[in-house]
Amino acid sequence: MPTYTAPVKDMDFVLHDLLKVTEQDVPGYADLDRSFTQAILEEAGKLASEVLAPLNAVGDREGCRLENGVVRTPTGFKAAFEAMKDGGWNGLDLPEEYGGQNMPYVVGTAVGEMFVSANMAFNMYQGLTHGAINAILTAGSDEQKATYLPKMVSLEWTGTMNLTEPHCGTDLGLMRTRAEPQADGSYAITGQKIFISAGDHDMAENIIHLVLAKAPGGGEGTRGVSLFIVPKFLVNPDGSLGARNPVSVGKIEEKMGIHGNATCVLNYDGAKGFLIGDLHKGMKAMFVMMNEARIGVGLQGYAQAEAAYQNALAYAKDRLQGRAVTGAENPAGPADPLIVHPDIRRNLMDQKSFVEGARAFTFWGAHLIDRGHRLGDTAAEGLISLMTPVIKGFQTDKGFEMAVAAQQVYGGHGYIEEWGMSQFARDARIAMIYEGANGIQALDLVGRKLAADGGKHVMAFFDMVKAECKAHEGDDRMTGFVEPLKLASKQMQTAGLYFMQNAMKNPNAALSGSYDFMHLMGHVCLGLMWTRMARAAYDALEAGAADRDFYQAKIATGRYYMARHLPACTMHLARIESGADPVMSLAADHF
Amino acid sequence: MPTYTAPVKDMDFVLHDLLKVTEQDVPGYADLDRSFTQAILEEAGKLASEVLAPLNAVGDREGCRLENGVVRTPTGFKAAFEAMKDGGWNGLDLPEEYGGQNMPYVVGTAVGEMFVSANMAFNMYQGLTHGAINAILTAGSDEQKATYLPKMVSLEWTGTMNLTEPHCGTDLGLMRTRAEPQADGSYAITGQKIFISAGDHDMAENIIHLVLAKAPGGGEGTRGVSLFIVPKFLVNPDGSLGARNPVSVGKIEEKMGIHGNATCVLNYDGAKGFLIGDLHKGMKAMFVMMNEARIGVGLQGYAQAEAAYQNALAYAKDRLQGRAVTGAENPAGPADPLIVHPDIRRNLMDQKSFVEGARAFTFWGAHLIDRGHRLGDTAAEGLISLMTPVIKGFQTDKGFEMAVAAQQVYGGHGYIEEWGMSQFARDARIAMIYEGANGIQALDLVGRKLAADGGKHVMAFFDMVKAECKAHEGDDRMTGFVEPLKLASKQMQTAGLYFMQNAMKNPNAALSGSYDFMHLMGHVCLGLMWTRMARAAYDALEAGAADRDFYQAKIATGRYYMARHLPACTMHLARIESGADPVMSLAADHF
Repeated sequence: MPTYTAPVKDMDFVLHDLLKVTEQDVPGYADLDRSFTQAILEEAGKLASEVLAPLNAVGDREGCRLENGVVRTPTGFKAAFEAMKDGGWNGLDLPEEYGGQNMPYVVGTAVGEMFVSANMAFNMYQGLTHGAINAILTAGSDEQKATYLPKMVSLEWTGTMNLTEPHCGTDLGLMRTRAEPQADGSYAITGQKIFISAGDHDMAENIIHLVLAKAPGGGEGTRGVSLFIVPKFLVNPDGSLGARNPVSVGKIEEKMGIHGNATCVLNYDGAKGFLIGDLHKGMKAMFVMMNEARIGVGLQGYAQAEAAYQNALAYAKDRLQGRAVTGAENPAGPADPLIVHPDIRRNLMDQKSFVEGARAFTFWGAHLIDRGHRLGDTAAEGLISLMTPVIKGFQTDKGFEMAVAAQQVYGGHGYIEEWGMSQFARDARIAMIYEGANGIQALDLVGRKLAADGGKHVMAFFDMVKAECKAHEGDDRMTGFVEPLKLASKQMQTAGLYFMQNAMKNPNAALSGSYDFMHLMGHVCLGLMWTRMARAAYDALEAGAADRDFYQAKIATGRYYMARHLPACTMHLARIESGADPVMSLAADHF
Repeated sequence: MPTYTAPVKDMDFVLHDLLKVTEQDVPGYADLDRSFTQAILEEAGKLASEVLAPLNAVGDREGCRLENGVVRTPTGFKAAFEAMKDGGWNGLDLPEEYGGQNMPYVVGTAVGEMFVSANMAFNMYQGLTHGAINAILTAGSDEQKATYLPKMVSLEWTGTMNLTEPHCGTDLGLMRTRAEPQADGSYAITGQKIFISAGDHDMAENIIHLVLAKAPGGGEGTRGVSLFIVPKFLVNPDGSLGARNPVSVGKIEEKMGIHGNATCVLNYDGAKGFLIGDLHKGMKAMFVMMNEARIGVGLQGYAQAEAAYQNALAYAKDRLQGRAVTGAENPAGPADPLIVHPDIRRNLMDQKSFVEGARAFTFWGAHLIDRGHRLGDTAAEGLISLMTPVIKGFQTDKGFEMAVAAQQVYGGHGYIEEWGMSQFARDARIAMIYEGANGIQALDLVGRKLAADGGKHVMAFFDMVKAECKAHEGDDRMTGFVEPLKLASKQMQTAGLYFMQNAMKNPNAALSGSYDFMHLMGHVCLGLMWTRMARAAYDALEAGAADRDFYQAKIATGRYYMARHLPACTMHLARIESGADPVMSLAADHF
């Protein structure tokens, strides 16, 4: 059975050696000294490894059941949810005014990674709530905030997002759920929503559904869409729970993974809903929720890979099979451990260097969000808006790939459910699909984000890479980082130029390469992170840091990423530059 | 629910336009004219699509059950197995003397692809039997052949392969199962074997287990290993079934996929076994079985991708979502079909061009086997021995990747089991693991096959590629094929040279790049196939072939492969040339 140990030391490195949080001018960051963040991380890590991780396989095996219209979560989930509530973890980075602790988002992200690694399906009950809270914080009225937020921050109530319908996923303009205005100012919501994560369960008193629906007079397509709050139980003026709203669970979907989370079909039969934000402006409010959710999903990608990697590493050190080609390393035993074999190491290093790079990238993204929210730093906002599809799309693709790679280390045992490695792969798979399938992320990146604000955010990113390379000129230690980063960044620029030169004549020339561009950019981002991490590690070593092995391993892992992951950029550029013809030339009938 | 249609037309193309089977000097090939092979393929295709495919999801959902020591297969499997028996499909490419039809292996491969695409788990009952038959054909005595083969060819009895034990998979030298010589010349087999596919079931009267075990006096490691026939029921001299042998099912494993196949723990408690082949030479006999099995597994890789692709394509044509960026293509409908979107096409073309290339490669491999078996062509034998790890390792990796890509086309529905796309990915996953995990295939390729017979087989392959390129010099139509193939082949040579120059000093320099080399070589092989297929398609068009759309689509699909898949070679070479340092430098303790 897999286990999980929170990577506190590595998170400490990212927060303090890499991001140097206490030196940043962001309100709230000054408090984040090493001992303080370490205490938080260790406490969260304990919950993750001792309470959540042991329930991961239970949730997978038992799944959720629909009994008399009510969803029953797997054995132990309710108690774990109480522990999560008691620890106040959901409110960690939420406003004090609604019961939160107002800590920076970067801290919430670190803690979130642990919970996701330990038990992704379980953590989604809280994760969706977090997203719904953000939407209400952004678009809700003061009364709505007062009514819903305190109970949601404390996890007494949870939240959901309702977008998809059977015939419409990405194309929300096709939506059929209707909102009829009522005399009392509320709306009667009628329609069917599918794929509603945490759509119902038995761990909270109430569930606050945020539902997209079409109210009269909004016109065609997504313009007619508004956002509504539809509580499972209506809330009386005194805050107590009132009538059961007619929203019911049609069924729980049988999925490839995340069995511990109830993915529901929800039927709204004239349920009472309350408009949130402006009428017919529901997409805007939903996007607020979705952007943070996309970063959360990008985190799921590498967090599953982290959990899978930890176990693959332990197995590779433990399992005796064959002998090192350079001579026995465990001569007293019947065979050497798997980790002596170069191809096993290649596999493990692939995983390790991706996960640590993605962690740095995601925490940096969270830091950019903090700069936006807490400082009003519009450059940071522009940058994270550009990075969001990369964090989501690239990291979930690679995260799944790495979970599959970790499974491979186990040989035949990796395929047997009892060993738990299949679950990491099956759970990680969904992250490539939901919150906008990765093809949509690539479209968002190339079709929208690259050119946003006259392209200034991507130019700022290139400047950042350039400055990083320049800062290490003449530093021989950094050659293995700077040279590959320069090349990859140049390839990304070449790809961008190719799009600019060809997209006017033929938009398909850009869109045919969008997926490759997302991956190319992902590697440049992680390459930048690794260059910065290497520099930070060298600095720490020079400053006489105690844990020399850790910092040296960090540098070696970075060298691996630059030597073995970054060459993918050359491939992606070649694919991009082959243009639209290979992709578009075959008529649909001739496939 | 997914459906399956046998790709008869494409198989016809590979057999007749590409391989030109009737023009080959292989005994039995002269009979294979188009109308004859088409009749076989259509008949097999009917069984595949009408009988096997509808049971695929049933097998996945129900799995196998162990009841009072007997394995029960899913609903409908027994009747389908009878249909398979009645059609005589198992004997298609087996000797007439034991009841087979003695057709070439290349025909058996085509038919096998259909059965695997339609229902991989089901087909394994027959597939393992086929492998066991080959081992008995090669290593068995005349008496053993007469006793076992007729019933196995007819599928009245099935077969299994027993290698793995709980503590030893790849490293068979660690084996603990013992064989004690008995007074009657038989052996008493005692030990536990795991991961035994088709290990028990209720569809055949008897099961013939081929079991590796250690007999006394053989020394340490794999040298002491012998191969034994251990029937579930002993066979009386008159051919009737005798006593139940003490081999019992410990449990059926819960797996990620192929639920319809019973993967058993088998306990041998002094079971009566009969030595097959020479004492202490069991590994040799087992390898006979394993080599064909590896090609069969490589076939599973792309056959699952084929089935997944067919359904993804149908969904992409059917599902309406969004509008083409170049203007509505279905203006009368509420949205355009998915297939108008460049990234969906990119995904579909990735799948299609891989599957068709892999089919050609595998059929070509089967043709090489026919040349070896039927003509004693040692050059062909050397070549297929070199190609086997590539067919197995490369094609199962890519096949899984493509099944996952097909799942992605469905968006959220791809994650819901009801839609069936998850099963293709879950089933395909095992092919990367069993019959030697893909890391072992890469080791076999680089550590053994490249240098075998003084490297003459790989040199022959390079000459073949060179000749193919030379044949098209000055033919402008072929530029998009010849140039990328030349480059990729050169990259493969450079990688080989790198291994030669560095492996003497440091074997890890070669082994660190073995996995990348396997993929690099896979692309060169498929690139060669696509170049040949393009030429064949042009020839057919010039000859005035009726189905011009088919041949033009073939060329367009090939162009896609060359433009979009082959650039991976540059990445693999860069990874290889980064050498052992990035892979080996981190001490195991510092991971």
